[in-house]
Amino acid sequence: MIFLDAAATTPVRREVLEAMWPYLSGEFGNPSSHHSLGEAAATALAGARAGVAKAINCRAGEVTFTSGGTEADNLAVKGIALARKAADPSLNRVVISAIEHPAVEESARYLERVHGFAVDVVPVDGEGLVTVEALRKVLGPATALVSIMYANNEIGTVQPVTDLASAAHQLGVPFHTDAVQAAGWLPLDVKALSVDALSISGHKLGAPKGSGVLFTKGRLRLEPLVHGGGQERGRRSGTENVAGAVALSTALTLAYAEQPEQAPRVSGLRDRFIGHVLATVPNAMLTGHRASRLPSVASFCFPGTSGESVLLELERLGVVCSSGSACAAGSDAPSPVLVALGIAPETAQTAVRFSFTSAVTDAELEQAAAAVETAVGRVRNLASPQAG
Amino acid sequence: MIFLDAAATTPVRREVLEAMWPYLSGEFGNPSSHHSLGEAAATALAGARAGVAKAINCRAGEVTFTSGGTEADNLAVKGIALARKAADPSLNRVVISAIEHPAVEESARYLERVHGFAVDVVPVDGEGLVTVEALRKVLGPATALVSIMYANNEIGTVQPVTDLASAAHQLGVPFHTDAVQAAGWLPLDVKALSVDALSISGHKLGAPKGSGVLFTKGRLRLEPLVHGGGQERGRRSGTENVAGAVALSTALTLAYAEQPEQAPRVSGLRDRFIGHVLATVPNAMLTGHRASRLPSVASFCFPGTSGESVLLELERLGVVCSSGSACAAGSDAPSPVLVALGIAPETAQTAVRFSFTSAVTDAELEQAAAAVETAVGRVRNLASPQAG
Repeated sequence: MIFLDAAATTPVRREVLEAMWPYLSGEFGNPSSHHSLGEAAATALAGARAGVAKAINCRAGEVTFTSGGTEADNLAVKGIALARKAADPSLNRVVISAIEHPAVEESARYLERVHGFAVDVVPVDGEGLVTVEALRKVLGPATALVSIMYANNEIGTVQPVTDLASAAHQLGVPFHTDAVQAAGWLPLDVKALSVDALSISGHKLGAPKGSGVLFTKGRLRLEPLVHGGGQERGRRSGTENVAGAVALSTALTLAYAEQPEQAPRVSGLRDRFIGHVLATVPNAMLTGHRASRLPSVASFCFPGTSGESVLLELERLGVVCSSGSACAAGSDAPSPVLVALGIAPETAQTAVRFSFTSAVTDAELEQAAAAVETAVGRVRNLASPQAG
Repeated sequence: MIFLDAAATTPVRREVLEAMWPYLSGEFGNPSSHHSLGEAAATALAGARAGVAKAINCRAGEVTFTSGGTEADNLAVKGIALARKAADPSLNRVVISAIEHPAVEESARYLERVHGFAVDVVPVDGEGLVTVEALRKVLGPATALVSIMYANNEIGTVQPVTDLASAAHQLGVPFHTDAVQAAGWLPLDVKALSVDALSISGHKLGAPKGSGVLFTKGRLRLEPLVHGGGQERGRRSGTENVAGAVALSTALTLAYAEQPEQAPRVSGLRDRFIGHVLATVPNAMLTGHRASRLPSVASFCFPGTSGESVLLELERLGVVCSSGSACAAGSDAPSPVLVALGIAPETAQTAVRFSFTSAVTDAELEQAAAAVETAVGRVRNLASPQAG
C-alpha cells in the first residue's frame, strides 16, 4: 500500500513512540502531584514544553498543550475573541478566510450564534490566496481577532501569513493562524511569522491522535474552553496528557531537524508527481496555488469522474488517498474550499488529494501517478461506456 | 515504593497497553477517512464505544469520547445548561454541591461570569453527604441542571445519586454526576442510577491520561465545547483519539469484570487500614463518611502536623500519597472540601489521603499504616521538640 493521505493523519514515528513510552509505563505520575512520581511527570512535561518552544521560537510559558488541533483552534478563536470582548464590548467582529478548516469556521459561527459576534469572511482568489488588500477591506475598529490558516488542508495553498498579520497589527488586532498542515513543512518561527497565536496538531506530524499545541503570545488573554484545576497556567484545565505532550514535542523537533532537507526534496517529488499527472491524465486540473503550496500536498480535479470512484479504483491499485478533508469525508456536498476558489460544484466533486509524509519516495509517486492515470481512465470509461 | 495515590492517577494496565498498541502503530487511520485504514480506525472506535456502553448500560450513541474527566465535566455542565437556556431563557440557574471537583465548580462559575447564570450551592453534612432535603431547598423552576458528584476525590464520600437524581427529575431538571472517582469501584449502570449525564476519566482507571467519556441520555441536547468537523455526533469535534478510546473502554471493561470481587476486598482492606491508623496515631481523625465511601479512599486529618510534612516523611518511608486533590496540590489554602465539612482550616491543612488501585495488598497497607504512625510521630516531635 502506498499511503498518500498524510494530511488526514500520519503513522506515529518510531522515535516518538520510544520517547513517549516511559510515560505510558513506569513514569505514570500526575504532574500536579508533589511526590517523586508527580515531579518526574512535571519534569517531562516541562521538557516537552521547552522542546515545542524551541521549535517555534517562543517562551515555554507561551505553549499550551491541548487535545489536538481542533481544540487549539477553538481555544484561539473563541478564547481570544471572548477575552477581548470582555475587556471592550465594542470588539464584536471576527475575521476568517473563506477556506478555513471547520475548527476555525465553526468556532467563529459559535461566537456569532451564542455571543453576538459578526463574522467577516475574506474571500480567496482562484488559487486560494488571501491578499492583504482583501483582508484590509474587512478589518475595522470592531475586529477582535483575525484567524487565517497558514496552509490549506485540501489544496495546500500557503498564505502570506507575515504580511496578513502585519495588516491586522496595523489596526491593533491580534492574528491567529491554524498551522496544523504547515507544521513540519514550513518555517514555524512565531516571531518571524509575527503571529499572536498558532495551532499545531500532533497526529499530522508523527505523534499520536489526542495531542495539540496552541501558542499564544506573551500576556495575550484567553477565556479558557475547559475550566477546572488551572493546569496550563489556567488556559486549559485537566490532568495533562504527559505522553502526548512528549510525543508532540519529539515529533515537532524531529520534523524541524529534517525540514531543511525534506521540504525541498518532497517539494521536488511533488512537482514531478503533479507534472506526471497533468501530462498523462486528460483534463486533469491542479487545484490551489502552483508555487505557494505545501511540499506535501498535490490536489486535483478530474472532470468527468467522481472523486469517490477514483479513490476506490486507486485503493484497488494500492494507493490510499482522499477526496479532500478527512473531516468532511462522507459528506455529499462539494468542498466549500473548492467552491470558494470559484470551481463549479460538479467539478469540485471530482477532487482527489494526495498528501505525503517525509518518508515518501520518488518510486512510490511514480507508481501512484501511473495508478492515477489508470484509475481515472477506468472511471471515465465506466461513466461513458460508449466512449470506451 | 508503595503507591497510595491512585485517586490522583493510576499506572496504565498491561492489558490496556496491549489493546491500544495497534492504534499507536500499524492501525493509525483517521476514523473519518473512507479508505481501509480509516475504516479500521472507525471500527476500533465503534468497538470502544460499544464497550463503554455495555459497561455503563447505555446505547453507544450516548457515549461521547473526550480528552479526560475535566473536559467531560465541562461539556456536561456548560453544554447542558447552555442548550437548555437557549431553548428556554428562564432556565438560568445551576445547582452544584459544596464539594464538587473544580472541573464542575469552575464550569458553573464560568456560566455565572459569562452567561448570566446563578449558581446554587447545596451544602453537605459533616461527613460530606448531600441530602435530598438539602437539594430540594435549592431546586426551583429556573434550575437548568443539577451536577453532584458520585464520590468525592478527597474524602471518598459516596452520594445517594439515585435519590438526588429523582429529586431533580421531579422538577424536570436533568442530573449530571461526576463519576471520575467512582468509576471502577461503584455500580455505574446509568439506568439504575437514573442520571442524565455522567463523566469518566481514563487515567483514574488504568488507561492513559488524555481519555475520558461523557454519557448523555438519549436526545439530551448539548452545546459543544469544541466545534469543527462534527465528530462524536457533533458533540465534540476533532480527530478522535482512537488509542485513548480503546484504552479507556478496555480499562473500564476490565474494572467492571473485577469489581464484584475487588470492591468488597479493597473495602475490607481499607477498613482494616483505617482501624489501624485510628488505633495507633493519637488524635487521628477520619474525614468523610465512615460507611458510604469509596472502597479505594482512606482520608485523615492529623492535628498538630502539617499534611505536607507528613507526606514528606511518608515518602522517605517508601509510601507515596497525597494531601488531597492533586489538582489543588501546591496551593497553600486549606481544602475547600474539608472546610465545607465544617473542619477548621488549621485542621484541614493536616489532611492526608491514601487511595488504592485494585492491586493493593494487605501487606502494603500494614506497612503503610506503620509508616503513618512513624511519620506523624516524627512530624509532631519536630513541631514540639520539648515534647520529644
